[in-house]
Amino acid sequence: MAVALARLPEVRPGDDLARLIVGAWETSFTEDADLRPRAGDVLVVTQKVVSKAEGRVVDLRTVEPRPEAIAFAERWDRDARQVEVVLREAAQVIRMDRGVIVCRTHHGFVCANAGVDASNVEPETVTLLPLDPDATAHRLRDEIGETLGVAAAVVISDSFGRPWRFGIMDVALGVAGISPLDDQRGLPDAQGRVMRSTIVAVADEIASAAELASGKTSGQPVVLVRGVPLGSGEGSVVREVVMPASMDLFP
Amino acid sequence: MAVALARLPEVRPGDDLARLIVGAWETSFTEDADLRPRAGDVLVVTQKVVSKAEGRVVDLRTVEPRPEAIAFAERWDRDARQVEVVLREAAQVIRMDRGVIVCRTHHGFVCANAGVDASNVEPETVTLLPLDPDATAHRLRDEIGETLGVAAAVVISDSFGRPWRFGIMDVALGVAGISPLDDQRGLPDAQGRVMRSTIVAVADEIASAAELASGKTSGQPVVLVRGVPLGSGEGSVVREVVMPASMDLFP
Repeated sequence: MAVALARLPEVRPGDDLARLIVGAWETSFTEDADLRPRAGDVLVVTQKVVSKAEGRVVDLRTVEPRPEAIAFAERWDRDARQVEVVLREAAQVIRMDRGVIVCRTHHGFVCANAGVDASNVEPETVTLLPLDPDATAHRLRDEIGETLGVAAAVVISDSFGRPWRFGIMDVALGVAGISPLDDQRGLPDAQGRVMRSTIVAVADEIASAAELASGKTSGQPVVLVRGVPLGSGEGSVVREVVMPASMDLFP
Repeated sequence: MAVALARLPEVRPGDDLARLIVGAWETSFTEDADLRPRAGDVLVVTQKVVSKAEGRVVDLRTVEPRPEAIAFAERWDRDARQVEVVLREAAQVIRMDRGVIVCRTHHGFVCANAGVDASNVEPETVTLLPLDPDATAHRLRDEIGETLGVAAAVVISDSFGRPWRFGIMDVALGVAGISPLDDQRGLPDAQGRVMRSTIVAVADEIASAAELASGKTSGQPVVLVRGVPLGSGEGSVVREVVMPASMDLFP
């Protein structure tokens, strides 16, 4: 089950996001008692509201683009200041071609524009990825749990493009209270054979299921997901899901 | 909502898969009337049962590996006959390193082992991807619709790894009755700004949501998904989701 919680007010830097999420959840379960917090609940929170609350917002009017950014922006019809912010956020530029900048971020995520995003924010501003999304997830989990008495797992989600396929899918940037990978190696398959290499990116699938329930334009950035495996409840996206560069076949 | 339908019997080459799915659905809605077919329903069917029913199965005992397959298998502790089948299925080998063979298939999918898979099949056999998964989806949709009176959309799913992140996520190989991409370009975001590049891979997200509801070892290869956008109901994964090699930044 995946259900978008009630709308949040516009989130601003310094806002208490946990309190806003508690408010949205209370609004939702006041209308529908089935949505009251339960053990095993997962809250999927989109990166955008996390970045806003944490002040990970850049005013483009303060940005002086470097010549490389200006040249790329002119060639591909982009905003040079935004390109500049992308280059600042990139630990490594993996590809920079056809208007697309694929970067490795300081967290190790490989994604378009280093996660810098201009949608659903004030004009002339962009958001950056949260500095430590796993830590954000833990903080939200603790604070929401203290208020509501049930510590829901938390997944911070973002929309990533993929090589070789059009379209974006939501994946997890950070987690708390859930193992991001469901390691089924060693379990028997339906034929009783040992499955050799099945590690399911369960937090990423949860992020995608939540995106379906929410949609991009709805202003409902928090989705309640139920009935999914939490594993040991331990784990980190950055430490467990992000592939070390040494194993990367597509540097 | 995503609910796995009742188990299917073991599927064998030549089986009437539509009939088996109808049987599973009937079993499920006999127990729970909420699961009766409705307009807007999507059935997600895993590749494995499609490949079996369509006879896309290879007996490894009949396979003579080429020297390249033997060398790779010895170096990385793999089955040389299986490596041979992968190389036969590959239209292009993109990377062949560290025990991993990333291929472009004849459909254009870029995935590990060209989709050749040994899990959940008889010993000494592997499955190949369906020849035309969009066509399979259309055939299933038509046949199930004729029997039950409601033409559910169909998504054929498979588990793909990704570069840069550990873990597999389910994506769509073929669709019928649903647009695989939800093109939100030109729609206003929550701030009323036009979103520039949001095309959501909705069929892939549906496949992932279904995987969560099913799991790999359960023998429940068909999942009913409700409440997701079908778009125009037209479209093809191979024609619309697969990125042409000319736009590929990671050849």
